[in-house]
Amino acid sequence: MSEFFPDVPGPVPFIGIDGEGLGYRVYDSDQMVGDKSMADHLRLAVCYWHSFNWPGSDIFGDGTFDRPWLARDIDPMRAAEAKQDAAFEFISKLGARFFSFHDVDMAPQGASLKESRANLDAMVDRAAAKMSQTGVELLWGTANLFSHPRFAAGAATNPNPEVFAHAAAQVRHMLDATHRLGGHNYVLWGGREGYETLLNTRMRQEADQLARFLSMVVDYKRTIGFEGTLLLEPKPQEPTKHQYDYDCATVHGFLDRYDLLGEFKVNIEGNHATLAGHSFHHEVAYAIDHGIFGSIDANRGDHQNGWDTDQFPTSVDELVPPVYEILRGGGFETGGFMFDTKLRRQSIDRSDLFHGHVGGIDALAKALLVAHKLLSERTLEGERDRRYAGWTDDLGTQILSGSLGLGELADRAVAHNIDPTPVSGGQERLENEINHAIWSTS
Amino acid sequence: MSEFFPDVPGPVPFIGIDGEGLGYRVYDSDQMVGDKSMADHLRLAVCYWHSFNWPGSDIFGDGTFDRPWLARDIDPMRAAEAKQDAAFEFISKLGARFFSFHDVDMAPQGASLKESRANLDAMVDRAAAKMSQTGVELLWGTANLFSHPRFAAGAATNPNPEVFAHAAAQVRHMLDATHRLGGHNYVLWGGREGYETLLNTRMRQEADQLARFLSMVVDYKRTIGFEGTLLLEPKPQEPTKHQYDYDCATVHGFLDRYDLLGEFKVNIEGNHATLAGHSFHHEVAYAIDHGIFGSIDANRGDHQNGWDTDQFPTSVDELVPPVYEILRGGGFETGGFMFDTKLRRQSIDRSDLFHGHVGGIDALAKALLVAHKLLSERTLEGERDRRYAGWTDDLGTQILSGSLGLGELADRAVAHNIDPTPVSGGQERLENEINHAIWSTS
Amino acid sequence: MSEFFPDVPGPVPFIGIDGEGLGYRVYDSDQMVGDKSMADHLRLAVCYWHSFNWPGSDIFGDGTFDRPWLARDIDPMRAAEAKQDAAFEFISKLGARFFSFHDVDMAPQGASLKESRANLDAMVDRAAAKMSQTGVELLWGTANLFSHPRFAAGAATNPNPEVFAHAAAQVRHMLDATHRLGGHNYVLWGGREGYETLLNTRMRQEADQLARFLSMVVDYKRTIGFEGTLLLEPKPQEPTKHQYDYDCATVHGFLDRYDLLGEFKVNIEGNHATLAGHSFHHEVAYAIDHGIFGSIDANRGDHQNGWDTDQFPTSVDELVPPVYEILRGGGFETGGFMFDTKLRRQSIDRSDLFHGHVGGIDALAKALLVAHKLLSERTLEGERDRRYAGWTDDLGTQILSGSLGLGELADRAVAHNIDPTPVSGGQERLENEINHAIWSTS
Amino acid sequence: MSEFFPDVPGPVPFIGIDGEGLGYRVYDSDQMVGDKSMADHLRLAVCYWHSFNWPGSDIFGDGTFDRPWLARDIDPMRAAEAKQDAAFEFISKLGARFFSFHDVDMAPQGASLKESRANLDAMVDRAAAKMSQTGVELLWGTANLFSHPRFAAGAATNPNPEVFAHAAAQVRHMLDATHRLGGHNYVLWGGREGYETLLNTRMRQEADQLARFLSMVVDYKRTIGFEGTLLLEPKPQEPTKHQYDYDCATVHGFLDRYDLLGEFKVNIEGNHATLAGHSFHHEVAYAIDHGIFGSIDANRGDHQNGWDTDQFPTSVDELVPPVYEILRGGGFETGGFMFDTKLRRQSIDRSDLFHGHVGGIDALAKALLVAHKLLSERTLEGERDRRYAGWTDDLGTQILSGSLGLGELADRAVAHNIDPTPVSGGQERLENEINHAIWSTS
Repeated sequence: MSEFFPDVPGPVPFIGIDGEGLGYRVYDSDQMVGDKSMADHLRLAVCYWHSFNWPGSDIFGDGTFDRPWLARDIDPMRAAEAKQDAAFEFISKLGARFFSFHDVDMAPQGASLKESRANLDAMVDRAAAKMSQTGVELLWGTANLFSHPRFAAGAATNPNPEVFAHAAAQVRHMLDATHRLGGHNYVLWGGREGYETLLNTRMRQEADQLARFLSMVVDYKRTIGFEGTLLLEPKPQEPTKHQYDYDCATVHGFLDRYDLLGEFKVNIEGNHATLAGHSFHHEVAYAIDHGIFGSIDANRGDHQNGWDTDQFPTSVDELVPPVYEILRGGGFETGGFMFDTKLRRQSIDRSDLFHGHVGGIDALAKALLVAHKLLSERTLEGERDRRYAGWTDDLGTQILSGSLGLGELADRAVAHNIDPTPVSGGQERLENEINHAIWSTS
Repeated sequence: MSEFFPDVPGPVPFIGIDGEGLGYRVYDSDQMVGDKSMADHLRLAVCYWHSFNWPGSDIFGDGTFDRPWLARDIDPMRAAEAKQDAAFEFISKLGARFFSFHDVDMAPQGASLKESRANLDAMVDRAAAKMSQTGVELLWGTANLFSHPRFAAGAATNPNPEVFAHAAAQVRHMLDATHRLGGHNYVLWGGREGYETLLNTRMRQEADQLARFLSMVVDYKRTIGFEGTLLLEPKPQEPTKHQYDYDCATVHGFLDRYDLLGEFKVNIEGNHATLAGHSFHHEVAYAIDHGIFGSIDANRGDHQNGWDTDQFPTSVDELVPPVYEILRGGGFETGGFMFDTKLRRQSIDRSDLFHGHVGGIDALAKALLVAHKLLSERTLEGERDRRYAGWTDDLGTQILSGSLGLGELADRAVAHNIDPTPVSGGQERLENEINHAIWSTS
Repeated sequence: MSEFFPDVPGPVPFIGIDGEGLGYRVYDSDQMVGDKSMADHLRLAVCYWHSFNWPGSDIFGDGTFDRPWLARDIDPMRAAEAKQDAAFEFISKLGARFFSFHDVDMAPQGASLKESRANLDAMVDRAAAKMSQTGVELLWGTANLFSHPRFAAGAATNPNPEVFAHAAAQVRHMLDATHRLGGHNYVLWGGREGYETLLNTRMRQEADQLARFLSMVVDYKRTIGFEGTLLLEPKPQEPTKHQYDYDCATVHGFLDRYDLLGEFKVNIEGNHATLAGHSFHHEVAYAIDHGIFGSIDANRGDHQNGWDTDQFPTSVDELVPPVYEILRGGGFETGGFMFDTKLRRQSIDRSDLFHGHVGGIDALAKALLVAHKLLSERTLEGERDRRYAGWTDDLGTQILSGSLGLGELADRAVAHNIDPTPVSGGQERLENEINHAIWSTS
Repeated sequence: MSEFFPDVPGPVPFIGIDGEGLGYRVYDSDQMVGDKSMADHLRLAVCYWHSFNWPGSDIFGDGTFDRPWLARDIDPMRAAEAKQDAAFEFISKLGARFFSFHDVDMAPQGASLKESRANLDAMVDRAAAKMSQTGVELLWGTANLFSHPRFAAGAATNPNPEVFAHAAAQVRHMLDATHRLGGHNYVLWGGREGYETLLNTRMRQEADQLARFLSMVVDYKRTIGFEGTLLLEPKPQEPTKHQYDYDCATVHGFLDRYDLLGEFKVNIEGNHATLAGHSFHHEVAYAIDHGIFGSIDANRGDHQNGWDTDQFPTSVDELVPPVYEILRGGGFETGGFMFDTKLRRQSIDRSDLFHGHVGGIDALAKALLVAHKLLSERTLEGERDRRYAGWTDDLGTQILSGSLGLGELADRAVAHNIDPTPVSGGQERLENEINHAIWSTS
């Protein structure tokens, strides 16, 4: 079997900041950052779909990429094998520890659920062998419940319970597959769990359906002994006008309301954060602070475009804050940085797939170094401690403990005419500190 | 005491669709719509701040309005009285049943909390007399916890507990005032409860503080016997980069998490909805469906501008869906349509304040008629019933009841190869039905 | 040849506002509005691509529509014929006077330019016969220079002049075809004339290329005696990060700079306007005021979604202002309202295509009635006359004529201390007048 | 006269990347970058208004800053003097070469145009002395034609020609003042030259007025012998719904249409670029490529907020591309990087003003180093040369020269079946090159 990426003969090497040719300029997998290696911090993963299953099409144009297995006239299972070979060749050469896939990325859908299942089983067996050979692990599996016309009005939230049933079959089987492959997590992205128009929609009914579905997944996970983490992936819209898993706070509330907190964590995507009107930093900090942080889809959007561009993350300036919060929260447990990234449609050289990933990984590695420095020097934490110090003093403690009522506190404020002078928030100074850390880290 | 609006000598009359001069073309307060009058459905309110306390300034320009009481050299309490006279003259002539105010709109802040309280008490006494004379009622009161420099970093979420204490004193007193005036609700808008930068911010700490504050308000409300509804008002940003009460779903989750559900409802503003990336329709439908609907700040934004323009609501096309959901939910209990609306800065004639309100009220009245027709003819509900019918059948019922596990359901799907044909969502047809209702209602 | 839309047996009738079944509730083609019939005012057109060539796919999902000619295994020319039959059946039954198409919508691309041309010629001959039978006319033709991978980096603006040459061949042939079919206009939409990243882009070089291309089209049009209007279609982005024909003002400046003003007019799309940060109203008013108005792609976006949703236009509130400006400008010359509209992906019934178009046409008809009333009553023009009256007085005339220098005028202002009192812009009052016109028009 | 910034006793020193205390970490004014010093490249300027005239207010809150001269009860001319002293102390200590001001920033408006002029003359005399003492120069002056209520409906574009006359007097006098102070440029920002609603607006009439105004300014500039550059400053909206100087392309077209090209260049603001839906990079590249580049308002917006936040520019990732284009264009002539930046409202320490500026200047200096490296190594230009090489070959030359008609070129394409294989745009690779340059530059 011939290589698909002959121009990259072996593993992408660490070449150092001014090294020549294709190689990592910052990411040195074994380099220790604090008490963990870069590899253990970042837990890098490649995605099957954008990198191997997407032809380079967009809503106005056909596929541009050189992906022979996507040709129309090829036998579906042979195509799936060629795709798998290329994927594992790529992941191995890149040196990523993990990959991720949807059921339909890896195996062709059959004429029936049974046939689809058989196809997937065959390909999963083959993947297991590849994983064993290469040492690549599965970060997460997921079922595609959004591309087929049957899911146009949602999967779990479909007005037709038969679609729910079909989705259940797919998820059950993909959860089995993920379990079989030792997946560290299982993801549910509700791409069509939302609405196109509220005129025909009952939001509460659909919320109940979604919660029911998730509860069934939780139970089933226990039944089969899957110990990976279940992850929900917030996105505000696209393809639907509105998606129910809008952002971390919305998902958090939903989980809490349906007694699913503790069972699910969030898989945060950079571009989904910005589409929801938040910074990537915000979504990660929210999840860390509220104990629902799970994993990351590492990419970025274009601030001037209103859709999911899924670009490779390259801005260290934008990556330092979310990586900082992850470190502050203790780092990943079962999650990792999964490259849910699309090459630009003009990036048609096979080596472009390496350039995209290598650049993104270097940017994350650089952000890791900076974030580690900021955390170990307590640059931000020291500032935060000072800023909130009053809440560990008498007044603050009394208020938070609940021992003071509004009337009592108000009386005290009036009696002492409490009116503290504002203090500087120091934002510009802190922004400079961040830049100092970026510029002085190498 | 002379009138401020001499060009509008008496109550704004209902003049019918083609009537001449200033008057309501659709809103006829006593007209029955179903089992309630228009006035009882809409529960219209005027706000003190934009209409009487705002000089017509914006971030790039000085006040343009003719509001003599805002002159620099006038005695603060005399100014407050003149403002109050004008406000009650306006509300009475407009024929709105309600008004709303912040503490600092109605009475000047004093040199101490005690003095501020005394000023407010005096003005509230005077307001009580006006209300008694005119029959105008208080829809809600609220404390301004965002304009003074002490609140630059938040009130309840301030890093300094003394600011929390000061805010507690203001809220306690304003809640007392609202109670004294028979207010139907009390609103908390967290204009500065958010952050400018996450670099110096602990989101979770601040969430805990905010929850503590709200709990204290709940307890105090009970203590004094206030029976109005407590309302939170979602807004995603502005003035702060991020506001914690981002949207209804976020507030809902927050309330649930801190055991405050049932104690608070939401006050939804049209323009806040659109700033959060939602439609006004969405926010209202969410609140109705999840039992947290309280009241409305009736206004609209400009779809091309990224800030809170607070324009008068004039688009029946945009108003019909949220009004429909409110009717579907049973209408307002203690809430109402409160005109949180600003005249454009060039609208400097005194009569413009009438034009703005009258046009907005007519648009709401028209939307009410249309929504009532849609609801009584079950145009949408019939469609929704048909669309979700499967969920009341066997399969749907079994799924929702929890009697089926994922494995069992999946087995069933595989065995029967369940794969339902999609059905049309009928969106264009339904949109036409809405237009039909609008065009055929008069 | 069997019908594709058997459920709509004949022409869609005018049924009046409360008529039953599928029919126009407002649009009555022969009804006179001023001195022209509704049909002559609106000059309605159906597009081939979204309605017959698009399978209902989106970036996350496969096609959902029942369009048998798009099946994979069908002979391309037989498929094109079936599509054409369905299209003309639809247009005829709908009662639209016009249609529009891209070369590749109507005929399959061949293995060479020559073959593609032959395919198109064959289908154009067939279309000519259909047009003759049905009376349907061609509003405009256009060449698809954006879907094929060769155009990934642009057509006229491609870094490779051979792509320019290929595009020239396509446009030449499609312009021939449009001419042969008596097309009233020819459109160039630069879907890929823009950039994905400025890092590899020379904007000025590409602008020069684009201008060269357009000049060649102008010359060729003269050569063949085509007397239709050439139209450019502004869009700010999507599929590219940035499109050069950003909005009307940008296109206007470009045409002027390259001496193409007078040769091209603009084809304005509602959804493109809003994606560019403008209102639809703005773009139309700009084009009318600057003499570059050509035609309309009638659709709307979703104010909460950042991409081109191409929905059917249904909001009379949003349509009245642009339709008003068009009437004020004297109405269409060669242009018309072309339905560049996509059904929602769930609207899979064949009749949904009728519902979408009928609803959109009714909304335009209603807007036409309202706009005509506003114009004939001079509601806005009277107000505008009053507002700008000073510019026809002495001072205004002197200033505009250029007879006063800055120094002279400044001296005069200082000498008389000119400082006029602002007057009300009357925005709320005018908004009410628009609503009055909408509500009182039937 | 005592210092206002005693905590910063003397000039801010260059301290190197890890230096302690307040100081420049990258910006070393005399360091040569290519053939010019950093200072000569960057031509740094401080603005009077945000830094000394703005109290820290926002639309929801009062001023928070410690600016004693803004107190209500102080004599206006004494206040203006104190403000001027503080401003020159700050600019000198910061080591910026330039400053900028509006007429009303520097001197109080009087009761008449004559009195305003006298106030300004007095303060300008005083400023001249300060400039002579300190060596600080004037980058540009400008007249505030947007804050006073008389300008609510525009200045040059006002429906009332008397407002035009008043504006002319202000501009004439401020242009005189700028000339007297040796200003390198004069700026016109049309903050209210736009509209709030099109219902009452004649866009073309207003465009003609604006062009007339600008022509008068050009003539007057010649009359007095002012040799600085006239600059227009694009902004899409805010405070108005729509501003006529929307973006560079719009301004470019406008200037061309009214024969003003060559007389005006553009002053590009980072935050205005992003509000217009462009990147800062785009606007600068457009202006450079089209010969209208003048100067920069150096700041940034918040990608999640829809208004002008005017933050200090800190992201080297975002600054490298625009700085690169400026270098490619040959650098500033009369323009410079003017800090049109606002402290966050919580940044109330006097030293925060230094932190903001120092951090921004360091970021620009770092971007300068990186951009210089990219340009001197031809990293991007080499790529661009290769990409567009075809346009210097036979075919490209023939096309651009106009020697080939569409028919001829089409015939050639058909005959040779020209259909070039796409080549990679290399975006990810180039993005990595930019990061390499950033990371390896110190």
